[in-house]
Amino acid sequence: MAGRRVLVLIGSESDLTKVEPAITVLSQLGIDSELRVASAHRTPDRVVELVSGARDRGFAVVIAAAGLAAALPGAVAAHTTLPVIALPLASGTLGGIDALLACVQMPPGVPTATVGIDAARNAGVLAAQILALGDPALAAKLHKQRKTMAKGIEESDARIGGGRR
Amino acid sequence: MAGRRVLVLIGSESDLTKVEPAITVLSQLGIDSELRVASAHRTPDRVVELVSGARDRGFAVVIAAAGLAAALPGAVAAHTTLPVIALPLASGTLGGIDALLACVQMPPGVPTATVGIDAARNAGVLAAQILALGDPALAAKLHKQRKTMAKGIEESDARIGGGRR
Amino acid sequence: MAGRRVLVLIGSESDLTKVEPAITVLSQLGIDSELRVASAHRTPDRVVELVSGARDRGFAVVIAAAGLAAALPGAVAAHTTLPVIALPLASGTLGGIDALLACVQMPPGVPTATVGIDAARNAGVLAAQILALGDPALAAKLHKQRKTMAKGIEESDARIGGGRR
Amino acid sequence: MAGRRVLVLIGSESDLTKVEPAITVLSQLGIDSELRVASAHRTPDRVVELVSGARDRGFAVVIAAAGLAAALPGAVAAHTTLPVIALPLASGTLGGIDALLACVQMPPGVPTATVGIDAARNAGVLAAQILALGDPALAAKLHKQRKTMAKGIEESDARIGGGRR
Amino acid sequence: MAGRRVLVLIGSESDLTKVEPAITVLSQLGIDSELRVASAHRTPDRVVELVSGARDRGFAVVIAAAGLAAALPGAVAAHTTLPVIALPLASGTLGGIDALLACVQMPPGVPTATVGIDAARNAGVLAAQILALGDPALAAKLHKQRKTMAKGIEESDARIGGGRR
Amino acid sequence: MAGRRVLVLIGSESDLTKVEPAITVLSQLGIDSELRVASAHRTPDRVVELVSGARDRGFAVVIAAAGLAAALPGAVAAHTTLPVIALPLASGTLGGIDALLACVQMPPGVPTATVGIDAARNAGVLAAQILALGDPALAAKLHKQRKTMAKGIEESDARIGGGRR
Amino acid sequence: MAGRRVLVLIGSESDLTKVEPAITVLSQLGIDSELRVASAHRTPDRVVELVSGARDRGFAVVIAAAGLAAALPGAVAAHTTLPVIALPLASGTLGGIDALLACVQMPPGVPTATVGIDAARNAGVLAAQILALGDPALAAKLHKQRKTMAKGIEESDARIGGGRR
Amino acid sequence: MAGRRVLVLIGSESDLTKVEPAITVLSQLGIDSELRVASAHRTPDRVVELVSGARDRGFAVVIAAAGLAAALPGAVAAHTTLPVIALPLASGTLGGIDALLACVQMPPGVPTATVGIDAARNAGVLAAQILALGDPALAAKLHKQRKTMAKGIEESDARIGGGRR
Repeated sequence: MAGRRVLVLIGSESDLTKVEPAITVLSQLGIDSELRVASAHRTPDRVVELVSGARDRGFAVVIAAAGLAAALPGAVAAHTTLPVIALPLASGTLGGIDALLACVQMPPGVPTATVGIDAARNAGVLAAQILALGDPALAAKLHKQRKTMAKGIEESDARIGGGRR
Repeated sequence: MAGRRVLVLIGSESDLTKVEPAITVLSQLGIDSELRVASAHRTPDRVVELVSGARDRGFAVVIAAAGLAAALPGAVAAHTTLPVIALPLASGTLGGIDALLACVQMPPGVPTATVGIDAARNAGVLAAQILALGDPALAAKLHKQRKTMAKGIEESDARIGGGRR
Repeated sequence: MAGRRVLVLIGSESDLTKVEPAITVLSQLGIDSELRVASAHRTPDRVVELVSGARDRGFAVVIAAAGLAAALPGAVAAHTTLPVIALPLASGTLGGIDALLACVQMPPGVPTATVGIDAARNAGVLAAQILALGDPALAAKLHKQRKTMAKGIEESDARIGGGRR
Repeated sequence: MAGRRVLVLIGSESDLTKVEPAITVLSQLGIDSELRVASAHRTPDRVVELVSGARDRGFAVVIAAAGLAAALPGAVAAHTTLPVIALPLASGTLGGIDALLACVQMPPGVPTATVGIDAARNAGVLAAQILALGDPALAAKLHKQRKTMAKGIEESDARIGGGRR
Repeated sequence: MAGRRVLVLIGSESDLTKVEPAITVLSQLGIDSELRVASAHRTPDRVVELVSGARDRGFAVVIAAAGLAAALPGAVAAHTTLPVIALPLASGTLGGIDALLACVQMPPGVPTATVGIDAARNAGVLAAQILALGDPALAAKLHKQRKTMAKGIEESDARIGGGRR
Repeated sequence: MAGRRVLVLIGSESDLTKVEPAITVLSQLGIDSELRVASAHRTPDRVVELVSGARDRGFAVVIAAAGLAAALPGAVAAHTTLPVIALPLASGTLGGIDALLACVQMPPGVPTATVGIDAARNAGVLAAQILALGDPALAAKLHKQRKTMAKGIEESDARIGGGRR
Repeated sequence: MAGRRVLVLIGSESDLTKVEPAITVLSQLGIDSELRVASAHRTPDRVVELVSGARDRGFAVVIAAAGLAAALPGAVAAHTTLPVIALPLASGTLGGIDALLACVQMPPGVPTATVGIDAARNAGVLAAQILALGDPALAAKLHKQRKTMAKGIEESDARIGGGRR
Repeated sequence: MAGRRVLVLIGSESDLTKVEPAITVLSQLGIDSELRVASAHRTPDRVVELVSGARDRGFAVVIAAAGLAAALPGAVAAHTTLPVIALPLASGTLGGIDALLACVQMPPGVPTATVGIDAARNAGVLAAQILALGDPALAAKLHKQRKTMAKGIEESDARIGGGRR
């Protein structure tokens, strides 16, 4: 699976900032991604176009981010059997609970892999975990990243924790 | 607009019972409807096929019913500029609040006309109200139906209301 | 239906800014609208007055916007069989979920066509979709607007999407 | 205020069973009530008719029960300055949270006095508390009822409470 | 009932600003009120003291405001059979839905009359409506206030409504 | 702390079945408990009476169970500085979310120790954990109970888990 | 990746029925799975034991199902960098919204791939989609399964859809 | 129990400010606490290490604070039979309702003692209440603190309450 890429979809340019941590973490792990703007409700045919041939164009995972009714991840999942990571965004006035439910409550047979509200970094890490199944070097990087993260917390503990108060 | 029909879409045969009151009320008002089964997530191309040419095939309104992530109404709205009535269904364990939010929280430019959870009869009445704009005879029927409904309540009042207790 | 107008109701002057995108989109599409301030709870008789004769005064659709208990759309629907578009507004501290439920959960026989929370533009577009059923020129404008919108997304995609990251 | 009555409104005959505990408790306290069926959405003019002259017809308090969008209490409050007790009913699939919000989130200047979901007995007791302000004998009855209630709990305690376990 | 007063309770000085519209509207209507600070959880005995003899000290209605677990209105209702108006406040992070539920979901026999979240003005108006049952002059003031309010909306309508757009 | 007891309070006889698992687990661990029926809203003085002297009567922990507005735990906490375990019960139509919020969202300075909705067994175990701080034999029993519980799960695993499928 | 297995974890034997559709769909697709019972809260060390070496024992994906506080999926994710599919279960009185939030709202760096409430079949399909990235034969099976599913819907449409009503 | 300490755990340095009121109140009451940073999802082994021997290292109570999926309190409770106080934090976009549910809805046998969202001070007070069971001097301090708190409210009342308005 080494060399395969991640397709990152947003439905509107205004979601760009929110999805960037996904692209950043993929890049840090040496995984190529392609960001595309296509909307389930406004350019549905472009979504189909981008997604239908995604496996053949070398994509292994799709990350789809959306707010409100958040149909994009499901629309993607409807047109591919690649794993689709749904990233619900908090837009509007309900804190993203609308997007979360619209992403995750998929009908039998067409799952999405939903991460937390606005959790773009986790979308990227999950994509990497999937790719790492066929890429031992990537798996090692993920393992190391986990260690680094743990070390950061241990350093916090050393700095502010411990001692009597 | 007289003579135009209503396209009624459900994503699964199991939603048939829930949508029937919509078809019944249309039929009572002399409006032809066509029921089709097509799923936004499982047969997305069929949805496009059914909806894209709907206006030309004589449909004026689409009613789309769905539960859970409830993408069908939005998927329909993405492929037509006909008015799309979204009917959220209570399936699953959350009482349909998931379906309601997924139906109604559409992005700017692609509205649905959402009715209440499991409110199939209202989906039908709303479709009729829309058709009645171009059909005075239908408008008269709706007016009369409203009167009958009011009369039913007044009869309830006469039967159980009033008097000292 | 060409030439018919849209009646836009708000219950308080403070809702004016929120409803303006509805009026703007109607105006862009060449549809006349009339904005009126009337409250279901504070001037209920004015609501009845404005709504009862609306069909005869040349209105085809009513848009009613309200926050909190959001009774205005339902009060309008109670006095006309014209299609009533309910626009729930996020006022107060609950993000508009109160208004959404109060707008959409109508009893059998008296529907509203509810759009998303604060989704004024969609209220306008939905009104236009309904009017377009009897107005092919308007239908063409809506179709074109949809194309323009799609083009905007495709341009976003051209600008920020694509390419390796 | 002695001799004044309570007007009890339901929007549909199907709410009769739910509202009965209100009528029962009023009757036990010797307060006359009148039950009427009138719907904010289906017979709005009847609501106005019943409510507008209510003060003059000897009513001191109105109890209005409703489920779903639950507009009846607010519609009543819009047409009278008598105190209006709102009784939200759990109908539909959301456990009555829709009705509660629609009853209680009234705009400034037009309050309702909302009791709990399906809490018909409390609607009756609250009406009695209000009437008791001008009726010392009724106030005494309420005081006694409270004592009886307390005694029942103390008897429960004597029966099942206490002692080692 | 003329001459009777309203007891206004808050549990903490920080709620003062939120409750002030209740006191203001009462004052505008010529009703005396007494503001007291007493907490159901921090000075429960003071609550009992203030409330138990309230009827005898000339109070006719109690307004109790509280946020979070919002026990104050219920604690008041437990010690008097005067009508108790519960005013849920939005403090904390949940927008006041916690306070609303804690205020309104009272057990059978001990109601509160709950108004909307942060709806202090409505708490005052409701108190006045109750007092007006025994005070025709006050009833007339309330009627007039309603007319003034309606006039304000009609003036808004004259100013911003009407005309083509 | 050995020998100290747990006071278990319910507000109504109808909550008896729901609270029994707390009493049972305490009994299994050799801890005496006393069940009392007293209501924050219906017999508030009895609550004060039972709770105020609880420490002196040898109680170390209070478990208070309640549904709906669920004021009992807070009322108990207001009258003692003993640890108070709040057990929210699902009564009414909202699944106990009302009771949970009313139990847990206490103001600064007067905490309750809230367990899950209908989680009576956990209320008992938590009481035992607190008592075990001063009772090594009880601590040992709790440790053993935990082991037994773990063993039960391991036996489930041995029975149904493992092996290819 | 062909030949790799799926580890299916439940925290209690009572969740067995709910997770079975995941195992069934994996089996239909020719994927080996291993079901284990281990609880994040009751046998946390067993969870660590089962999960830590999972990659080396030939597992590629873990499915972890849990209700209520639903810590199991996150506990699994904390001990492996394999993709972890979280399956929230509706137990208790809140319809599984508690489990959904506990599954999906993971901190940065430790994602789960959450599917819908009680959506065991989708957990299985998602696992298969991930495995199919390294197994073209499995990818073909998934593609075929999708076609069969679509055909089922088209047959429904042929049977109950179409025709005038 | 005099001399025993409280272990305060946070999962990330960014939670430090939120948990400080717990440490402050403990310090004011003369109780030693130890703050440690350890994450259920990022350094799960450190959590086990810190918690497993906590009783033997002289800790009597653990306070664990967490936001989002909030697994830390439960992970702590899984590794000790000491009482564990769960402090849900409002991080993310849902106001902390996710953290509250993840903290409180524990499975039978492994309770946490949950306090309100962001209610760090109450976490500290609850810990002190537990420690006071074996420490009469501390119990006296808590009693005095309660009196001081009450006095503060009475002073507020004297300052802003009372008198006619």
